[in-house]
Amino acid sequence: MAVVRAAPSDTCIGFLRSHPALAPKALADPSLTAESRSEQGGLGMTSLGDQLARFEAGSSDYESRFGFPFIVCVRRLTPPFVLRGLERRLANTPEQERIAALAEIGHITRLRLVDRVSGPGIPPTTGHLSAHVLDTARGKAAEGVRIEVFREGVLIKEAVTNHDGRSDEPLLADGPLRIGRYELRFHIEEYYANWPNVTDPPWYDVIPIRFGVAEPEGHYHIPLLLGAWTYTTYRGS
Amino acid sequence: MAVVRAAPSDTCIGFLRSHPALAPKALADPSLTAESRSEQGGLGMTSLGDQLARFEAGSSDYESRFGFPFIVCVRRLTPPFVLRGLERRLANTPEQERIAALAEIGHITRLRLVDRVSGPGIPPTTGHLSAHVLDTARGKAAEGVRIEVFREGVLIKEAVTNHDGRSDEPLLADGPLRIGRYELRFHIEEYYANWPNVTDPPWYDVIPIRFGVAEPEGHYHIPLLLGAWTYTTYRGS
Amino acid sequence: MAVVRAAPSDTCIGFLRSHPALAPKALADPSLTAESRSEQGGLGMTSLGDQLARFEAGSSDYESRFGFPFIVCVRRLTPPFVLRGLERRLANTPEQERIAALAEIGHITRLRLVDRVSGPGIPPTTGHLSAHVLDTARGKAAEGVRIEVFREGVLIKEAVTNHDGRSDEPLLADGPLRIGRYELRFHIEEYYANWPNVTDPPWYDVIPIRFGVAEPEGHYHIPLLLGAWTYTTYRGS
Amino acid sequence: MAVVRAAPSDTCIGFLRSHPALAPKALADPSLTAESRSEQGGLGMTSLGDQLARFEAGSSDYESRFGFPFIVCVRRLTPPFVLRGLERRLANTPEQERIAALAEIGHITRLRLVDRVSGPGIPPTTGHLSAHVLDTARGKAAEGVRIEVFREGVLIKEAVTNHDGRSDEPLLADGPLRIGRYELRFHIEEYYANWPNVTDPPWYDVIPIRFGVAEPEGHYHIPLLLGAWTYTTYRGS
Repeated sequence: MAVVRAAPSDTCIGFLRSHPALAPKALADPSLTAESRSEQGGLGMTSLGDQLARFEAGSSDYESRFGFPFIVCVRRLTPPFVLRGLERRLANTPEQERIAALAEIGHITRLRLVDRVSGPGIPPTTGHLSAHVLDTARGKAAEGVRIEVFREGVLIKEAVTNHDGRSDEPLLADGPLRIGRYELRFHIEEYYANWPNVTDPPWYDVIPIRFGVAEPEGHYHIPLLLGAWTYTTYRGS
Repeated sequence: MAVVRAAPSDTCIGFLRSHPALAPKALADPSLTAESRSEQGGLGMTSLGDQLARFEAGSSDYESRFGFPFIVCVRRLTPPFVLRGLERRLANTPEQERIAALAEIGHITRLRLVDRVSGPGIPPTTGHLSAHVLDTARGKAAEGVRIEVFREGVLIKEAVTNHDGRSDEPLLADGPLRIGRYELRFHIEEYYANWPNVTDPPWYDVIPIRFGVAEPEGHYHIPLLLGAWTYTTYRGS
Repeated sequence: MAVVRAAPSDTCIGFLRSHPALAPKALADPSLTAESRSEQGGLGMTSLGDQLARFEAGSSDYESRFGFPFIVCVRRLTPPFVLRGLERRLANTPEQERIAALAEIGHITRLRLVDRVSGPGIPPTTGHLSAHVLDTARGKAAEGVRIEVFREGVLIKEAVTNHDGRSDEPLLADGPLRIGRYELRFHIEEYYANWPNVTDPPWYDVIPIRFGVAEPEGHYHIPLLLGAWTYTTYRGS
Repeated sequence: MAVVRAAPSDTCIGFLRSHPALAPKALADPSLTAESRSEQGGLGMTSLGDQLARFEAGSSDYESRFGFPFIVCVRRLTPPFVLRGLERRLANTPEQERIAALAEIGHITRLRLVDRVSGPGIPPTTGHLSAHVLDTARGKAAEGVRIEVFREGVLIKEAVTNHDGRSDEPLLADGPLRIGRYELRFHIEEYYANWPNVTDPPWYDVIPIRFGVAEPEGHYHIPLLLGAWTYTTYRGS
């Protein structure tokens, strides 16, 4: 990155120009590398629906304005935040944007390198999402609570709490957490079924907790302190 | 009700037989009274979707088994709980069910009477739903938070908190609260926008709180204690 | 107050000089008015213990420095905060301090007037302290919880929660709340005794909540959300 | 223990009779072993104050009733709970009490053995007390909070939270936690001093959390979720 940043402006721009445009346009390009194809195919920009046209228009504006395609490390963002980033970066000066685009290439390259090498000195590229359910009406961990993980409205993971009130594995820990909006749904219908004086319907059945992930390499821990008629959540550590 | 309950069994059954069947079948019956039409039209049994066939089949079974149509005070239940009630009552003995059906006629009649009269001695037929948002990071009520009220997935009300952190009017207070599952969504995106160190996306933007209403005439109060990185809710009083 | 503030500086200082010094010195002065005697006797400066000498020394310094005795509306402060105020005000300029001392006379006079008159237009001079105990393990108000109110370590009030989880009367509402440190102790030993699986000793028996009162005319509400193995408190509204 | 329990009743009683009586009487007995002297000297029965006479009277009753001295593993109880245990065990039948007294000798012996040996198979004799302070107004651990640990009103430990909001070492982990009432005092005066809009006095300065320890070998974790105007605690895991 130091070499790239120190290169003459023309060299940098040439480097940026050689980068493929973002999906879905790019997927039609036969010269796309396998890695780009995989990264961009997994991006799911088509999930933008009505906003896809906005993204396509913004991409064109961007390329006209800066002379190189819009580059972003798609493994670190959900599609709505790719779009938001595009629209913000359109307001940059060419100089600011050259730095921003090079930083994204840095992120992309770092992730590709980390996929191939191992050993000490690996930079942090993995985020971490976990949850913990404590039963504060009984003073112990809540076992057997099913947790669904949604990201931008899409179910991406399920787990069940063990005797320690946690999932056996982290909910997410296999790469950057994509910047975006997440929701955990804690299914306590069955957990509650054994309680005294449960009403019908029960006071709580599914507890949804929504939160935003802003740091792809961050640690996010979501405790649920579950009483019979109350709950508390917070950003844990 | 005392007179009805004390009547001979045959008289009771005749009385129950003269009651119209439940919507949607009933809506096709030209002899339906205006009140029944209004109550049942508002019930929204068609919202049951795939389960509507289950309801129709259960209604037929019911009528075959007990000799009178399935009667329920539809202003006190959401459609999924009308269906659940039907399926439970199918397991009753004829004697138990005659008592249950008469009790429902009691609820229906009480509500119709209460609509027409006023003055002291009115029985309690109205439930009450309210919310309160306190900002525990600043030690004061949270003003300007928009609250959406969903019942069985349908948006039925919106309100905005005033300087006391409450809605000017109760969220719901115009009749029985229909037994069912409710969700309040507290929109705090704008409330948060002025905070220091807000991330993008913010840690919280919309806080959904789901709960079940089991007593149509009950008081339900949903406080939200909102800190910057935590929240607590409970059944208030 | 407008007349006093607009008076020439010499007149003001003469006015301030005619004010009695603070207890305990003042209590020895036979010319002290009955009101001053009552207010200052109730102040309890002797409770300062070891710090009383610091107060006496500060008072002397004050009188030497400003030419009039240290004046403070003792009904609005606990003794440690009278002392803290004295030490802070010693750093004032004569002009700042003349204004500060006149403001205190304003507070004193206002309280004396409010004691004697009634009707519309009465200025707010009364603070308000209340508490509320909710049992979030059972979803209802906690009745029969004894609450002790301590102010600067001295028990000044006791109450028991009613069926609504509140005391029948506000805990304190008979004048300004003295600026200082308060503690509520919620005695839940007996309330817990009926619970399932209570340990010996119980997990909680007395729940102390300490807080500071900074606004004598403010409303302070202390909710206790009591679960079996958790509790939450906050500044309520 | 199996051998002891299986021994004839007379042998057991002889064994129990040879056990020293509890302090403070025992401390005057020159035949007391060094271990008993140390355990009982550390017990602090003299802290019972006015209740010491009750303990002495109960001990005499006990010895008259059962024919052997009152034996209890004093490392597992605070003095008030030694007294409470004595008064409860007085209601036992001789047979129940012989079993109870032997169990106490088992506890005493186990602790003495564990002090002398090491390696796999060591039975659990150590309890564990820890705390955690999270700042839910800023979404991170609270560093620099001083914690005092009181047991039955006596300060027995102090610690300061590190950057992870915990003490570097467990608060207590060097043997059984004595059954009794504990209080943690979290000193947040300085932690708060940097906050915006701190009042004088601050809303919170010292947060006391009282709780009872009923299992000497248990793990007790006391989280404090600290907002600016709220806090929550619970039995953690």
